[in-house]
Amino acid sequence: MGWAIALHGGAGDISLSMPPERRLPREAALRHCLRIGVDALQTQKHPLDVVELVVRELENHPNFNAGKGSVLTTVGTVEMEACIMDGKKNCGAVSGLTTVVNPVSLARLVMEKTPHIYLAFEGAEYFAREQGVETVNSSHFVTPENVERLKQAKEANRVQIDYTQPIQKDGKTENPIADGDGDSQIGTVGCVAVDGNGNLAAATSTGGLVNKMVGRIGDTPIIGAGTYANSLCAVSATGKGESIIRGTVARDVAALMEFKGLSLREAAAYVVEECVPKGKVGLVAVSASGEVTMPFNTTGMFRACATEDGYSEIAIWPSVQE
Amino acid sequence: MGWAIALHGGAGDISLSMPPERRLPREAALRHCLRIGVDALQTQKHPLDVVELVVRELENHPNFNAGKGSVLTTVGTVEMEACIMDGKKNCGAVSGLTTVVNPVSLARLVMEKTPHIYLAFEGAEYFAREQGVETVNSSHFVTPENVERLKQAKEANRVQIDYTQPIQKDGKTENPIADGDGDSQIGTVGCVAVDGNGNLAAATSTGGLVNKMVGRIGDTPIIGAGTYANSLCAVSATGKGESIIRGTVARDVAALMEFKGLSLREAAAYVVEECVPKGKVGLVAVSASGEVTMPFNTTGMFRACATEDGYSEIAIWPSVQE
Repeated sequence: MGWAIALHGGAGDISLSMPPERRLPREAALRHCLRIGVDALQTQKHPLDVVELVVRELENHPNFNAGKGSVLTTVGTVEMEACIMDGKKNCGAVSGLTTVVNPVSLARLVMEKTPHIYLAFEGAEYFAREQGVETVNSSHFVTPENVERLKQAKEANRVQIDYTQPIQKDGKTENPIADGDGDSQIGTVGCVAVDGNGNLAAATSTGGLVNKMVGRIGDTPIIGAGTYANSLCAVSATGKGESIIRGTVARDVAALMEFKGLSLREAAAYVVEECVPKGKVGLVAVSASGEVTMPFNTTGMFRACATEDGYSEIAIWPSVQE
Repeated sequence: MGWAIALHGGAGDISLSMPPERRLPREAALRHCLRIGVDALQTQKHPLDVVELVVRELENHPNFNAGKGSVLTTVGTVEMEACIMDGKKNCGAVSGLTTVVNPVSLARLVMEKTPHIYLAFEGAEYFAREQGVETVNSSHFVTPENVERLKQAKEANRVQIDYTQPIQKDGKTENPIADGDGDSQIGTVGCVAVDGNGNLAAATSTGGLVNKMVGRIGDTPIIGAGTYANSLCAVSATGKGESIIRGTVARDVAALMEFKGLSLREAAAYVVEECVPKGKVGLVAVSASGEVTMPFNTTGMFRACATEDGYSEIAIWPSVQE
């Protein structure tokens, strides 16, 4: 049925009143990255190369929470993670990166150059040096915006006795990872693609949660949670990592197609609407036959897609037809 | 239908000619741990407490590859990982532990005392100290047997050009993680349990692969791969971690029940026989209604189970009835 591509820059509580100076650069980035992906598919690049290329672009963009825009841990450091997988279930993942410019490309090297799937923290950094990928001083990733975000999250946490509960401040409930300003706490990035021959791939990359504990691993690098591909579909999820891990979100979309015979759109909608908490999760997915879907149960999701038959969409909030 | 429990000490190429001095201590350990688990269930302990208790015992046993018996990374260090999950999808996981005596209990603390599911490496070690769990110098875990295993694995690797391929030495194919001596390279441990009220839990703990790269994460701590529980069943898998991750083995058992209506036994058999490479994977599982199953596609799996109706089994190789 032809190629298809979808990408996201995170799902969450994105305020409808987000000012143009915040909205426009992100829309432009989504358009730019979609263009790069479409061009790559049209020049017969393998979907694995396409999703890596697109996610690298998104990682390099400071307005998304991955690579350059990664949010900070509770001690002010960055710990980035990423994952890549193709329709033959080849896969690679990394966590706890502090100096690697493009985590998604290191995930691909883990897949192709090691007997393992997943390397983390010092071992992953050591592997990065061994492979000669681009690294920078960790301070490169620490933007003034993310220092401020961490400060705000820590201030909110101060009054919290049980820090597993929603934050209470001045009598109202706040959530440091969904503060409604449309900024990149929620900006995990991802891309899925399929070519005209049904070759599939998915990739996801993130800086994680603002004020996360040192060593915290989220859904992004977990095969079957934030990222998954098989012969039927490719999925990249975004939102509250812990909800996505519990829901084995990306695998469940594929499993509903495989075990229950649902279409891609039906499977993805079922997972997002029925299997995970409201307000927490979004995903992008393509099927081997070139279908595309981008459901979310949050206020919005930065997203874009295109298919060979000429359909294209760049959006943040629910579309009129959805 | 009553309580049920199953536990394993690893699946792999376990030689039928394993000498009694290697076989008997492991059978005794399985019997001892099964007894502890059954006693706990009979005294109305919650399955979450039961699986933690049993896995702690298995971790403390030097003949299994978890806790005290953990195998060594390529640089001779230990990096332990563990996971625990209950039927309400509460879960906790840890990786990259170097000093924690009982990784499964730290996984439970991550579940109960943090807003996260999964902590790894230095952050997990820091959390262990903060929580005051028992730790020892990392050298405590380095047994002479595991030093010798690493040496053998490295010698075999020396003649290997592409170390993702099976090892060739003296004309025959060898595999450092399945060397047929029945020793604990393959001895990941796990336990699943259900009580008479249908409350479910699963836990898994491992030292990983002999000669693994520093930072390598396997299937054990990955929700849906090595460990999974929901309202239908609880599963703990063992074998080649990368195959189990690609196969989302533990989640797939549950997904086949949930989406395709298979029984526990049918679902587990389908996953082990049809969805993962031969010779790589085994699992133990119980259902909410008290069924138990322990399939494997390897030569053997150290395993034990018991149910409230009086059935009990301790075995290594295929049973006559299987």
